[in-house]
Amino acid sequence: MSKIIPNISVDCVIFGFDSNQLNVLLVERKLLDEQTSETLIDDWTLAGYHIFEEEDFDTAAARILKRLSGLDHIYLEQFYAFGGVNRLNKPKDQLWLKHQHEGFSDRIVTVGYYSLIDNTSVTLSLKERNVKWFPVSELPELGFDHEEILQKALEKLRTKLRNEPIGFELLPEKFTISQLQRLYESILGQSLDRRNFRKKVMQMKYLIPLNEKQKDVKHKPAQLFLFSKDVYERTKKERFDFTM
Amino acid sequence: MSKIIPNISVDCVIFGFDSNQLNVLLVERKLLDEQTSETLIDDWTLAGYHIFEEEDFDTAAARILKRLSGLDHIYLEQFYAFGGVNRLNKPKDQLWLKHQHEGFSDRIVTVGYYSLIDNTSVTLSLKERNVKWFPVSELPELGFDHEEILQKALEKLRTKLRNEPIGFELLPEKFTISQLQRLYESILGQSLDRRNFRKKVMQMKYLIPLNEKQKDVKHKPAQLFLFSKDVYERTKKERFDFTM
Repeated sequence: MSKIIPNISVDCVIFGFDSNQLNVLLVERKLLDEQTSETLIDDWTLAGYHIFEEEDFDTAAARILKRLSGLDHIYLEQFYAFGGVNRLNKPKDQLWLKHQHEGFSDRIVTVGYYSLIDNTSVTLSLKERNVKWFPVSELPELGFDHEEILQKALEKLRTKLRNEPIGFELLPEKFTISQLQRLYESILGQSLDRRNFRKKVMQMKYLIPLNEKQKDVKHKPAQLFLFSKDVYERTKKERFDFTM
Repeated sequence: MSKIIPNISVDCVIFGFDSNQLNVLLVERKLLDEQTSETLIDDWTLAGYHIFEEEDFDTAAARILKRLSGLDHIYLEQFYAFGGVNRLNKPKDQLWLKHQHEGFSDRIVTVGYYSLIDNTSVTLSLKERNVKWFPVSELPELGFDHEEILQKALEKLRTKLRNEPIGFELLPEKFTISQLQRLYESILGQSLDRRNFRKKVMQMKYLIPLNEKQKDVKHKPAQLFLFSKDVYERTKKERFDFTM
């Protein structure tokens, strides 16, 4: 049986896009009074747990993601470590930790990972805990310092999106320019000019137009595109050689 | 007296630029046999130490930097956490840890920070340990997994340099375009075309040309420039609004 490290955990900010908005996968944290069945805690947290003695951070993050979502081989990136002295000091968080009886330390540091998923193609296979997608723009109350962790992940995701085409991890294999624009808008949290967006996008050599249009839509079907990782990697050096 | 956390440390990759090359500040790790005075270990490490119970990561990094270099209020940025299970398992590293008698754990995770300094304007005020600047292109043998940590810091620094004008932290207040180019070249590890560089640089609104030239140089004195943080911050939104 694996032993946990009492004072080190990993928390995963699992972002999903549903062709309209950016969502995050949260886990319900519920605690009832054993005598009275009164609800003591009912809020949400990120998907996280302690690392095991024989695990590095990447392994722990993949394990947590798999256990909570059933998903394997998903884009996961470490983005920041959180070590605030008072990060778990709220009375509610202390109450929760006291009831776990898992030998956690009083002071826990956590390493944040974010993950990107096309959440229209994902079925959650969860048994132990209640997990749910929430729009990033309408979050419920979060436990611990998870609001801060989520905001930091969003900030890092925004920076990354401006420099690398990671957004494609969140889209179906074939997508329209409108879907791509909606994705950028929901991550950046601002609306973008349609003509400027289209102009920019048409300069991306790694965005491949297909001789194929949308099916089963009520409006006029739009052209579909592919993202070519291969072309991206091969034009990367050229594009990134020197930009200031 | 502060108590350390036995299994969590911070390591600082302190980059310095000396108007010609990129350097990194290293600390000598020397262990002699107590009986025979034979040298058991003689190599170099990054500036690091365990965090204290009442410290967060930023505070620990600033403390370590100050203690080793005498420097305060320096640009410091967390860039990655390292938690490999075998990161301290080399016999030499085990021997070193055994001789410290400081209650370190067998498994230590570390949070990496990098720091940027104009090392022509810095005097090191070190007492306890031997510290020295090394060119990043000519590193000595490094202890623990510090070679890996340093390479990761360099990779993050390169990415950051392409997106933000952080390079100015490494230059004197007034500098020439050639100095700026040399800085970019030494961080990116490649030479850049002089005319293209000048053209790019001239588009940066936050680079302010002065009515002032170099003094005391043997060649024809070049024009001096300032970096305006204020102009940078105010034009940032505009520039970053949408780049893919």
